[in-house]
Amino acid sequence: MRCLVTGGAGFIGSSLVDRLLAQGEEVVCFDNFDTGLIRFLSEAQENKRFTLVKGDTLDVAALKSAMKGCDIVFHLAANADVRFGSQHPRKDLEQNTIATHNVLSCMKDTGVRKIAFSSTGSVYGEATVIPTPEDAPFPVQTSLYGASKLACEGLIAAFCEAYDFQSWIFRFVSILGERYTHGHVFDFYRQLSADSGTLAVLGDGTQKKSYLYVQDCIDAILLAIRNARGKVSIFNLGTDEYVEVKDSIRVITEELGVKPALSFTGGSRGWIGDNPFILLACSRIRALGWTPKASIREGIVRTVRFLKANDWVFAARETPAWS
Amino acid sequence: MRCLVTGGAGFIGSSLVDRLLAQGEEVVCFDNFDTGLIRFLSEAQENKRFTLVKGDTLDVAALKSAMKGCDIVFHLAANADVRFGSQHPRKDLEQNTIATHNVLSCMKDTGVRKIAFSSTGSVYGEATVIPTPEDAPFPVQTSLYGASKLACEGLIAAFCEAYDFQSWIFRFVSILGERYTHGHVFDFYRQLSADSGTLAVLGDGTQKKSYLYVQDCIDAILLAIRNARGKVSIFNLGTDEYVEVKDSIRVITEELGVKPALSFTGGSRGWIGDNPFILLACSRIRALGWTPKASIREGIVRTVRFLKANDWVFAARETPAWS
Repeated sequence: MRCLVTGGAGFIGSSLVDRLLAQGEEVVCFDNFDTGLIRFLSEAQENKRFTLVKGDTLDVAALKSAMKGCDIVFHLAANADVRFGSQHPRKDLEQNTIATHNVLSCMKDTGVRKIAFSSTGSVYGEATVIPTPEDAPFPVQTSLYGASKLACEGLIAAFCEAYDFQSWIFRFVSILGERYTHGHVFDFYRQLSADSGTLAVLGDGTQKKSYLYVQDCIDAILLAIRNARGKVSIFNLGTDEYVEVKDSIRVITEELGVKPALSFTGGSRGWIGDNPFILLACSRIRALGWTPKASIREGIVRTVRFLKANDWVFAARETPAWS
Repeated sequence: MRCLVTGGAGFIGSSLVDRLLAQGEEVVCFDNFDTGLIRFLSEAQENKRFTLVKGDTLDVAALKSAMKGCDIVFHLAANADVRFGSQHPRKDLEQNTIATHNVLSCMKDTGVRKIAFSSTGSVYGEATVIPTPEDAPFPVQTSLYGASKLACEGLIAAFCEAYDFQSWIFRFVSILGERYTHGHVFDFYRQLSADSGTLAVLGDGTQKKSYLYVQDCIDAILLAIRNARGKVSIFNLGTDEYVEVKDSIRVITEELGVKPALSFTGGSRGWIGDNPFILLACSRIRALGWTPKASIREGIVRTVRFLKANDWVFAARETPAWS
């Protein structure tokens, strides 16, 4: 199987690339290296079944060229910055919605008929049913990020209907683990590296969040594309647990052996559009035989250990990623 | 109140323009005249409170200029061609999703904080609950048109959250009445004008459809913006009735006094992505005191009578609309 992985130099993308190569697939990685890191692909680049293309999903010609001859697209490229959406509202539209339209349009033109897509639990907005199942009541969006991913899901389903594609849509909770380079554990780690005595926390620390370990996430994706046969298969991906931000801080500080004074900005939301509570009902993917192997605590610990052992990612996130 | 009506030269848009002027508002009509017709605005153009701007919602500068000083935007401009979405998939993206992003972005820049939006019952895809309420199970999209309107709804809600806008989102069934210039009654009328002896019908004629008379639709919109106070208020707009395409044909042919032989293309769908059954639960808007005054039958009869008395619309739909 020849696979195109958009965003293949990113946290989840590069982890997927390695797993696909390990199971014997051919992999084309397509990434604009805005946030992707070339070092995540160092092992992949030694594999003859791996091809690297530097390109942007807004560049239709480059995308189409990379896609030719592929059997499936894993479309992970995105502006994943849920928090700062209100500061640059057009970025989600371009990098998520229009980019996904381009991917689908190129699939139509090149005859690729299968797409796996990384959506988000944020599409549920402030869910009225918790844990939230895939067929929860029609949600009202609360973030530009969630809205853009919802738009992508709609496009994918409509293209499936119009052009007989098959799709797998995965609504993730936040993902943790090796190669994690943005989000709260990253921010807290960076703050504590600079000054282990204090930690500034957005919100009041009681926001409840659900996390999933990256390899468990990839297990689920690979299992679903093998076994879910529908035209449009939608799966929540998360654990049955949740933690409060405060709990997460406890795990991080214990792992680092520091005892910072915490200062909270207050309020039940970390930022505008933040969801105070995300917990997804994952019985659909569990019915296929999937079970997460790592607890949230283990996911956080592995993330902290990765960051400890890979100081370079902090510098890499400050400088052009391709360099 | 100064109102911007995008798509204000269209069927529903121009009807809204006239009603807003009649209730004493100032109205700026913004239309690219792709499908809008200048003759629909002949009465409006005699009113001092009316301003006409020829512009496209993809032209941000023109849009922003037209929006300045307005209190509310009625965003009706759209590619309303649900049927041929699969033949030009980018049109829905541009004219609906990107255009709506532009409208919201210009509102942010000009300080306009209220938006009323024409969405569609097509966002429910193939609804699992019928009649379908606004909080029906999270739908899977089946048409590029529905997907694009879903994307618009998501953007509107997210902008409301991020920038403290207020919005009213209306999910319409198909609208009928004076100035109706596309859709099945139009197509059937045109066929029967050319040859009253035969009528070709997409599907098997048993597709169930719900329709609403245009003035009832506008009553609901004006009532909702006066009385619904939430940040994001979503309303289905339809009647409690439905008809099969066959029933609709009977009303049209009786009104025209013709007895054509019917030929059906067959199948339960008129086209790819067509919904075999749309019926919306409208208790939310009814709870505000709204009741449709015209039955579906009356809506069809009024449409046929409008077409009979306005032969010019058939020619106008074939030639550049601005001319």
